[in-house]
Amino acid sequence: MEDKYISLAHGNGGRYMRELIAELFARHLSDPSKEDTLDVTLDAAPIGLGEGEPYMTTDGFIVQPLEFPGGDIGSLAVNGTVNDLAVSGATPKYLSLNAFIEEGLEIATLDRIIASLAAAARAADVQVVAGDTKVLPRGEGGGLYLATTGVGLRPAGVDLGMHRIAPGDRIVVSGPIGDHGIAVMLAREDFEISGDVRSDCGHVIELARTAMEFDGLRFMRDPTRAGLAGVSYEIAQHAGVTVRLLETEVPVRDSVKMVCEMLGYDPYYLACEGRAVAIVAEQQAEALVSTWRELPSGEGAALIGRIEEGAARIVLETEIAGERILDDLEEDPLPRIC
Amino acid sequence: MEDKYISLAHGNGGRYMRELIAELFARHLSDPSKEDTLDVTLDAAPIGLGEGEPYMTTDGFIVQPLEFPGGDIGSLAVNGTVNDLAVSGATPKYLSLNAFIEEGLEIATLDRIIASLAAAARAADVQVVAGDTKVLPRGEGGGLYLATTGVGLRPAGVDLGMHRIAPGDRIVVSGPIGDHGIAVMLAREDFEISGDVRSDCGHVIELARTAMEFDGLRFMRDPTRAGLAGVSYEIAQHAGVTVRLLETEVPVRDSVKMVCEMLGYDPYYLACEGRAVAIVAEQQAEALVSTWRELPSGEGAALIGRIEEGAARIVLETEIAGERILDDLEEDPLPRIC
Repeated sequence: MEDKYISLAHGNGGRYMRELIAELFARHLSDPSKEDTLDVTLDAAPIGLGEGEPYMTTDGFIVQPLEFPGGDIGSLAVNGTVNDLAVSGATPKYLSLNAFIEEGLEIATLDRIIASLAAAARAADVQVVAGDTKVLPRGEGGGLYLATTGVGLRPAGVDLGMHRIAPGDRIVVSGPIGDHGIAVMLAREDFEISGDVRSDCGHVIELARTAMEFDGLRFMRDPTRAGLAGVSYEIAQHAGVTVRLLETEVPVRDSVKMVCEMLGYDPYYLACEGRAVAIVAEQQAEALVSTWRELPSGEGAALIGRIEEGAARIVLETEIAGERILDDLEEDPLPRIC
Repeated sequence: MEDKYISLAHGNGGRYMRELIAELFARHLSDPSKEDTLDVTLDAAPIGLGEGEPYMTTDGFIVQPLEFPGGDIGSLAVNGTVNDLAVSGATPKYLSLNAFIEEGLEIATLDRIIASLAAAARAADVQVVAGDTKVLPRGEGGGLYLATTGVGLRPAGVDLGMHRIAPGDRIVVSGPIGDHGIAVMLAREDFEISGDVRSDCGHVIELARTAMEFDGLRFMRDPTRAGLAGVSYEIAQHAGVTVRLLETEVPVRDSVKMVCEMLGYDPYYLACEGRAVAIVAEQQAEALVSTWRELPSGEGAALIGRIEEGAARIVLETEIAGERILDDLEEDPLPRIC
């Protein structure tokens, strides 16, 4: 493309928009070797679904800054949606992509982000088959917002859900929590601290697939906005149980702990973008942890708590053998994290 | 909901966000009488697809103002995506919805818009099964942006596409052009003219279904951004033909013509949001027009031109028997129309 910056003309349905789509989006996202690759001449794209039950999910992304250690809004937009399908037991297959681009965004930045999005889609083995771009006037738009919708297939007969959770079940997490939240926060220039924390941004497809081999698997979720506490709160409310988390067992990196202590954040509420939480029958919990630890995406897996009969709440058993109630999130400590 | 305005806390994944989703979005969009209705407790929703080839499409919406005569960003977000499926020959079935809401938006406004969106979804017989909301800081976000992704089913054996277009084929439009563009423009306060033009915002499902009963149907499209000229330009380019439009035959309302003349707009480039353009074999063109005219959504249908061998361009035959070449859209006369 000849232009260096996005202009309103890139959103008008004419020549500039077609150039942007062909020379930037399609260049990264079309793979002529695949039959079901992005075809920008179509109003709607055929999605060849095979055996299984189709599932659909969607997510919007407004993270600031657009790029951060370990990821960017592009890889996040793929993994966020892919992971919602994966924890539902579905194999992600197809994505649609909406880009709301602010006038004035450097085209080189957009190019890096869409290249990263395309790489994340290849890693997750999903095809971006439909897309749309809109250009927002300068000052309105934060550079770039993305939305992705995913369609995947779940094998027949899978029964996962909060209705299957019962007292005695164990809680397993696939790795350290809080990395994404802290990495994005440190990438903001308004905090004058730096650190070597990288986002865990990645897909959880293998984690979900291996977990589904356990017949004692009840439920999975990816702890994004509102973090591990958010997932635990939803479980407590919907399953009508007490969620007991063990502070000594929940993996949190030292660097994340340090930043949290400096700034008064609570890692339990921080977003992860490449972790899975599983609720599993007691007798299979250790085996699930061992299985996950053999995967690159699960090497930090840990058994972190259990489901108990009792009031719908989260009890955190602290290091000093005390108890702390984790409340529902009211004020967000870190907005625009995804 | 107790609050009167959207705050950043409505986007944080905690209590306020859940309230917004349950008490506003789900209230309008969940229909307990349907098995596959929106369930806000799910990470991904099952979409029961029946016989046929699944198709997927997506669109983003940034129209200003959010409400205008004949529609609003909510009805537009349903019809825009539903129509992309319909003109592809697919019956729309499921939608996902992304809302990017600006802090400070009046909740009563959001409520009206989502109610209108729900009504448009019912009219098109589609289920909104997945959704996500993000809140943007005040000053960044234009009130509300929406994105919708649709999944539909196309009967096996349908072959529609620009590859089927050949010289001699006729061009049919389902009704007057330019209504949506002018209605939105007049709703903006920066133009000090008023008029009684209403947007044509609506779905084209019946138009598409009845057109598909003609074996001479080659291709359909909804003339949105860049209007009838935009669709014609794409046909000329991709099919390598001359598109001849007859100015005396293209339906344009007097009120639309008048505003266009006052402000120097060209109706051929203005967006429609409830019209379909069909390319059909010569011998079936009159019959298609008659069939469409029997539908409420097609009562203004007209045969407006033909496909000719020749250079890839659009020739407009004018009232005074002259010819004018319609070029590709470069500068958008009316940005943020959808």
